[in-house]
Amino acid sequence: MVTSTTDELKAMGGVSGPNDQALRARAKAVIPGGMFGHLNMGHMPADYPQFMASGVGARVVDVDGREFVDLMNSWGPVILGHRHPVVEEAAARQAALGDCLNGPSERMVELAERLVGVVSHADWAMFQKNGTDATTLCCTIARAATGHRKILVAKGAYHGAAPWCTPVEAGTTAEDHANLVRYIYNDLESVRAAAQSVAGDLAGILVSPFRHDAGFDQELVDPTFARGLRQLCDETGAALILDDVRCGFRLHFGHSWQPIGVEPDLSAWSKAIANGYALAAVLGNDRYRAPVQTLFTTGSFWCSSVSMAASLATLDVLEREDSVATMVAKGTQLRDGLDAQARHWGYPIRQTGPVQMPYLSFVGDDDRAVGTLFAASALRHGVYLHPRHNWFVSAAMTDADLALALSATDAAFEELREAHVEIGPPAS
Amino acid sequence: MVTSTTDELKAMGGVSGPNDQALRARAKAVIPGGMFGHLNMGHMPADYPQFMASGVGARVVDVDGREFVDLMNSWGPVILGHRHPVVEEAAARQAALGDCLNGPSERMVELAERLVGVVSHADWAMFQKNGTDATTLCCTIARAATGHRKILVAKGAYHGAAPWCTPVEAGTTAEDHANLVRYIYNDLESVRAAAQSVAGDLAGILVSPFRHDAGFDQELVDPTFARGLRQLCDETGAALILDDVRCGFRLHFGHSWQPIGVEPDLSAWSKAIANGYALAAVLGNDRYRAPVQTLFTTGSFWCSSVSMAASLATLDVLEREDSVATMVAKGTQLRDGLDAQARHWGYPIRQTGPVQMPYLSFVGDDDRAVGTLFAASALRHGVYLHPRHNWFVSAAMTDADLALALSATDAAFEELREAHVEIGPPAS
Repeated sequence: MVTSTTDELKAMGGVSGPNDQALRARAKAVIPGGMFGHLNMGHMPADYPQFMASGVGARVVDVDGREFVDLMNSWGPVILGHRHPVVEEAAARQAALGDCLNGPSERMVELAERLVGVVSHADWAMFQKNGTDATTLCCTIARAATGHRKILVAKGAYHGAAPWCTPVEAGTTAEDHANLVRYIYNDLESVRAAAQSVAGDLAGILVSPFRHDAGFDQELVDPTFARGLRQLCDETGAALILDDVRCGFRLHFGHSWQPIGVEPDLSAWSKAIANGYALAAVLGNDRYRAPVQTLFTTGSFWCSSVSMAASLATLDVLEREDSVATMVAKGTQLRDGLDAQARHWGYPIRQTGPVQMPYLSFVGDDDRAVGTLFAASALRHGVYLHPRHNWFVSAAMTDADLALALSATDAAFEELREAHVEIGPPAS
Repeated sequence: MVTSTTDELKAMGGVSGPNDQALRARAKAVIPGGMFGHLNMGHMPADYPQFMASGVGARVVDVDGREFVDLMNSWGPVILGHRHPVVEEAAARQAALGDCLNGPSERMVELAERLVGVVSHADWAMFQKNGTDATTLCCTIARAATGHRKILVAKGAYHGAAPWCTPVEAGTTAEDHANLVRYIYNDLESVRAAAQSVAGDLAGILVSPFRHDAGFDQELVDPTFARGLRQLCDETGAALILDDVRCGFRLHFGHSWQPIGVEPDLSAWSKAIANGYALAAVLGNDRYRAPVQTLFTTGSFWCSSVSMAASLATLDVLEREDSVATMVAKGTQLRDGLDAQARHWGYPIRQTGPVQMPYLSFVGDDDRAVGTLFAASALRHGVYLHPRHNWFVSAAMTDADLALALSATDAAFEELREAHVEIGPPAS
């Protein structure tokens, strides 16, 4: 809820450039609604371009040539920066041999070995294309191993967009969700109650490394909660499934609960593992090796080698350059800078989640109206961020990128102030 | 069932090369069973390499440097030949700009426009990564449009490997398949009975362009059957969904039922549409445009531009070079050659399916034992084909490739004959 005059707010808004507008019109004719999914800008301020042209390092350029410091990084896949030269070179070298063949190449074995070496709980790996493929396969493996049906998932958590897990009910059936039971993140009692409610039919507990629900302040995991899940799985024989699709390799060079010493049985990966190349993975421990061999899942491109070569290169750079530390350092500077700016301009904000996956909200801005104005203004001043979803800091961010990002957010705070934007009481 | 002496048969067999064997051993440690899915060579003759090194045109090379004329083409994705220069150049040009960004590029609009122009029933397009994504989304759209749950599918048909459709039950639940009702391909009465059994709750009918079940002689569609499905959908308001994942652009430059004049409401595409780059698509007509906008499905890489640039180039070449005609011509020569060889060596065979998606079986060889020996021998003589799954002829096949393929199959027939292999009566 924003308190300001309509004219002042209107004056703040813009629209994306003429090339973007022209493409939106063409898209509307041949794509339902002009776009779909999480990259649909239909619910974002009109300033946001729907169509992008290019990216390099921490910068992206839209189809009208507007360049932005990128704080979304393709919603997670880009971790080392766009078109990282080491990754691109590895991908091109593999592409010159072959990508999708009658079998995998040596890259698959190398990558499985590498992941097993890096991720503490993993004894084996399998590969897919989508994060949803990986979370789905984890559930299937848990069911095959236990002979049980029920999977516990946190209320509000996002684990993909297949009918069993999409947050929107349209087109799905009651049967699609029949085997999910909800618990509250970080509330061990709610998990125990959920497990009890399906005692004898519990296959697994699916959990994110931290609570990163879109539209809400983020919540780090309580290590006691994580340990409690592990214990509950040990007691019941259920699989502990860590959905590391969004966080994987951003929080730790390994799975995201390694630092707190809690080992899942299965983990789901995608997004950043190949720096933007389409790849997903399921990692598991030896208890689940035999059950995997009883099931059948596959895809036409699951053995393609270019994305695996890209992943191997990505892992090399992540390790060699200690990219997690870089992202933490840059994320900390970003958070500190934003805090100082908010204080300076007199806007109460909350920054939650890990610094390398920042989430910013304005206190009292329940409908995200102020946050949305802020994001649109920041975009116009040169930084691409999001008002209702966590951001992603890449390891490519230079001091110059950070300075530009902070100068854009400072200008956005100033613009809010000059337009007399106040966070008003909610409409009643 | 093979009638021969064990020694003679043993003498026929080989194993894959030392590099392949070494990689298999390494893979066994870090991938359950050493491999998964349809590219798992665990159930193929030991001659077949599990790991491939490269491909160009109609030839593939395994990790031991053995070169084969490729009659599988990555199980469908490769239609113009491996690393087709026009496709590779378009992909590289796009990769130099960007692939996975904060939004799609202009390529998505161009590709949607192109597909709508080429595929007669299509008014719009959406893009995914896996064929299974596309078939799943078609079902979801049909349900969103009708408010009904049930999807009719042909007994034995393959529509993907997610829990709702995988042919192997392990790890799936009764709820996963609760909304499928089976009919018999080409048996309209069975479809009408299935529809009647769920009257009032019918969302869609899912059907392949022809019956291409693995392990069985293939069966072309009866146009009367196809027209009957269309009529049934018109009567009931259910969506007619054509699963063109495997056949798309191999049978016709357009959807596979265009030549018989039956228009689906929705169609699922993947495999060959980008000549090996990971891409899938759902095409639909205007009746389904609004329902699509009520649902939410997405993936981290669904907007990536390189595969779309590759698809645009693939479509250009397919159209310009009339590649379907090329595949038909080469497929016909292959079929005729195999028929002549089988007659010459005295083996009764059946060749079914479209000539560009050939399927070969030995008459009476119910357990495919002779077919498997034949495939292994043909492989050793330089052609990569499959004893239990349809093959895929690419448009890259030259006269020299065809001659080499046929000389390999001729040698395989001869080898069977010299080892006194006869198709015996089934064990009882």
